[in-house]
Amino acid sequence: MQTHLQGRDVIDFQEWTKDELDTLLDVAFSLKRDRALGRRHPLLEDKVLAMLFFFSSTRTRASFEAGMAQLGGHAMFIESKTTQIAHGDTPKEIGEILGRYTDGIAIRHCDFGVGNQYIRDVAAASRVPVLNMQCDVYHPHQALADVMTMTERLGDLRGKTVTVSWAYAKSYLKPLSVAQSLVLLLPRFGMNVRLVHPPEFRLMPEVYEQAKDNAHHGHGSFEVMDDFDAGFKDTHVVYAKSWGAMMSTTDEAQENALVDKYSDWITDPRRMALADEEAIYMHPLPAERGVEVADEVIDGPQSAVFDQAENRLHGQKAAMALTMA
Amino acid sequence: MQTHLQGRDVIDFQEWTKDELDTLLDVAFSLKRDRALGRRHPLLEDKVLAMLFFFSSTRTRASFEAGMAQLGGHAMFIESKTTQIAHGDTPKEIGEILGRYTDGIAIRHCDFGVGNQYIRDVAAASRVPVLNMQCDVYHPHQALADVMTMTERLGDLRGKTVTVSWAYAKSYLKPLSVAQSLVLLLPRFGMNVRLVHPPEFRLMPEVYEQAKDNAHHGHGSFEVMDDFDAGFKDTHVVYAKSWGAMMSTTDEAQENALVDKYSDWITDPRRMALADEEAIYMHPLPAERGVEVADEVIDGPQSAVFDQAENRLHGQKAAMALTMA
Amino acid sequence: MQTHLQGRDVIDFQEWTKDELDTLLDVAFSLKRDRALGRRHPLLEDKVLAMLFFFSSTRTRASFEAGMAQLGGHAMFIESKTTQIAHGDTPKEIGEILGRYTDGIAIRHCDFGVGNQYIRDVAAASRVPVLNMQCDVYHPHQALADVMTMTERLGDLRGKTVTVSWAYAKSYLKPLSVAQSLVLLLPRFGMNVRLVHPPEFRLMPEVYEQAKDNAHHGHGSFEVMDDFDAGFKDTHVVYAKSWGAMMSTTDEAQENALVDKYSDWITDPRRMALADEEAIYMHPLPAERGVEVADEVIDGPQSAVFDQAENRLHGQKAAMALTMA
Repeated sequence: MQTHLQGRDVIDFQEWTKDELDTLLDVAFSLKRDRALGRRHPLLEDKVLAMLFFFSSTRTRASFEAGMAQLGGHAMFIESKTTQIAHGDTPKEIGEILGRYTDGIAIRHCDFGVGNQYIRDVAAASRVPVLNMQCDVYHPHQALADVMTMTERLGDLRGKTVTVSWAYAKSYLKPLSVAQSLVLLLPRFGMNVRLVHPPEFRLMPEVYEQAKDNAHHGHGSFEVMDDFDAGFKDTHVVYAKSWGAMMSTTDEAQENALVDKYSDWITDPRRMALADEEAIYMHPLPAERGVEVADEVIDGPQSAVFDQAENRLHGQKAAMALTMA
Repeated sequence: MQTHLQGRDVIDFQEWTKDELDTLLDVAFSLKRDRALGRRHPLLEDKVLAMLFFFSSTRTRASFEAGMAQLGGHAMFIESKTTQIAHGDTPKEIGEILGRYTDGIAIRHCDFGVGNQYIRDVAAASRVPVLNMQCDVYHPHQALADVMTMTERLGDLRGKTVTVSWAYAKSYLKPLSVAQSLVLLLPRFGMNVRLVHPPEFRLMPEVYEQAKDNAHHGHGSFEVMDDFDAGFKDTHVVYAKSWGAMMSTTDEAQENALVDKYSDWITDPRRMALADEEAIYMHPLPAERGVEVADEVIDGPQSAVFDQAENRLHGQKAAMALTMA
Repeated sequence: MQTHLQGRDVIDFQEWTKDELDTLLDVAFSLKRDRALGRRHPLLEDKVLAMLFFFSSTRTRASFEAGMAQLGGHAMFIESKTTQIAHGDTPKEIGEILGRYTDGIAIRHCDFGVGNQYIRDVAAASRVPVLNMQCDVYHPHQALADVMTMTERLGDLRGKTVTVSWAYAKSYLKPLSVAQSLVLLLPRFGMNVRLVHPPEFRLMPEVYEQAKDNAHHGHGSFEVMDDFDAGFKDTHVVYAKSWGAMMSTTDEAQENALVDKYSDWITDPRRMALADEEAIYMHPLPAERGVEVADEVIDGPQSAVFDQAENRLHGQKAAMALTMA
């Protein structure tokens, strides 16, 4: 167990050691048990978290804000458009100033090629921890909640197979961040990770190398596949969600055409039957029903989506309690 | 007094027994007295209320949020447009997920034919109480505040006459919910309820039967009139506000023409003089001055509008303290 | 020290005595020291502040909201556009109603010729203190933070020279309020105040008389200059920021042309060299970099801009703790 996490940023857990992650999970499950028992845990009394959103949110905002209240503190919900950022406040100024008013700064900024750098620039100027609520590259708190959920459902994760797959979607092009944080984090717990996507929907190049390296050190494995059905074969976890291709945003029509080429990449009962008998279905929500996933699957007994959503609360409370104390 | 209200929804008080309502009023007046004395009452320490708004608000949001803070808890102000509801979050998902993060979910959704069903769908999926902050059908917390105000001004409500009337308005078409919750609730306290409206501005059909039935069981009375002046005659309470006609929203021009037919339905001093000498004037605000009501009336000594607004706070605190404990 | 400040409004400190200001500063520095030591100070437990914004904000909203949380209370962030003000809520109704729900009302309303009157109308109807978070005329909490910062940097302010100057800016036309609150407040601390602006960018006429009168009573001085360079000569504090001209808003093109006439009014290293060797540079932020001020100055060792921003928190906490207790 690590006891010196005060002041640490959570930009991605790639920057945390496995020991530190184990401490975080231990605290998360302990806070979850407390809540089940109605035991108060005011660990952040009078502490303030600034939550800065450049992108809409349901689960993330509600879980961070409720979590801070349950810890005895207060989270400010700040939409970037209500601020004077458009009038010239720089990331350095945001970091310096919010860092002096608060005990932590959480940021969601998903613009491709911009969001992660923005968060790092704020962190460089801030005297308090900076928490990444999703950027263009990472979504660490989703991955943390997902590890919690897999652990609850599967027990020891070592040697278990998890399929992180692209899926079809009709609406806007989603960030790569959930898939990237997952393929980086899961092999560190000894899982065999299959990343499945059409050739055009690659993740960022450095992620492949890092995931392979993590698998090596974590005694897991990492393989890349482009056959959706093959990805389901005997897996213990199906985690299939859409993401966009990395191309210029001016090519939106072309990108949509590309997406439509793979309109049969939907998780349906036939495909779930290819997986291990006790396999679970996961999705960070919101899902496109009938497009990314069939209703029978997301609403069925193998679905773990609401536990995933709930674990956002407990995982984030642990991260806040450890870093902002 | 009823002591098992934990976990109960407040969709409309039509679904609460008279005994339960008496308990609620007793707690509301007790919390109001505490506040007058500066006595703290942290009954919901560390508890969180999610407030989800599909419609703008002044009093409702401020009174729920201030009320939770005074009870030691925290209320999250969530505008639906800042969430991923547009990206596919269903009412079931909202209920499941917010129900796991919080201790109560309050919703304002006034779209005709949609709002009440949305609230019921969230409630069906939620493990915590759901509070209706106004829908297309009901506005229970306004009616509760109004019963408190009438009780403070008139004492025992049995045998008192209250006039719930339509009034002229120029701006947008307002929901039916205030009038409907009032004509359902007031006869249960033994009041003689006059519902006054032009023939084209009927409430929903089932409300007439329910109000009559409530009057029978509550030893009050319920009558429907279409003569505005006659409605004022000797009444103890004038509660006149505008609402829209139940027709397709595509007929907006036609609906406006209909409203303009009754442009003289304004509460003015001449009409107030027809009422009982000590009659009070009530309105949930905001009122259209010079259109729904004359300044001399709303600003005059018979007006109880600010006490009504204040009682929103105390009544809602009682509802939250009893259901979310 | 003054001990009866409960219930007092902060519309501008022009309406507070020098003794009262000294008390406020004393409390502000004491709360700042507490925070440095991690000492809790829950002086406003269960108290609620309504913050009503008609204009965007970064520092003001975050510092008031974080400050209330640190004092054990809760601040509600209310954007006017999310309320029913557009549906007819009057300032009187806002004052009456929010005054019954909360323990304080803070308002930012910068529309020229409107904002200050709105705040005064709310205050007249409110039973709780009203705090001005910036209007068209005053920005008292910025001026308070600035006096704190100057005191920290310069020690005793008596006999020190401060230059409050107009500066060039390309973006929207900024309120006069910061400059006006400064030239009113600073001479009361015995400072020699130079107000520097082009002839077309005058402050409101009454401010000149009041500032002169304040200088007389405060044993400071007040002079008006129109030569930017001369304003820097041997000064101890350079406080140069842009503001708009007082003309009809329909003349926007004409006003922009006027502004562009003075495009060389930028605080740069050459000009800073004219000032006292240990002079500090101040700006309330956000600044237009390369337009109002050169990067070398605002990012350099003479810049006090982040301490200014931080002192917003401590000064406002003192004002809230004294008036809302």
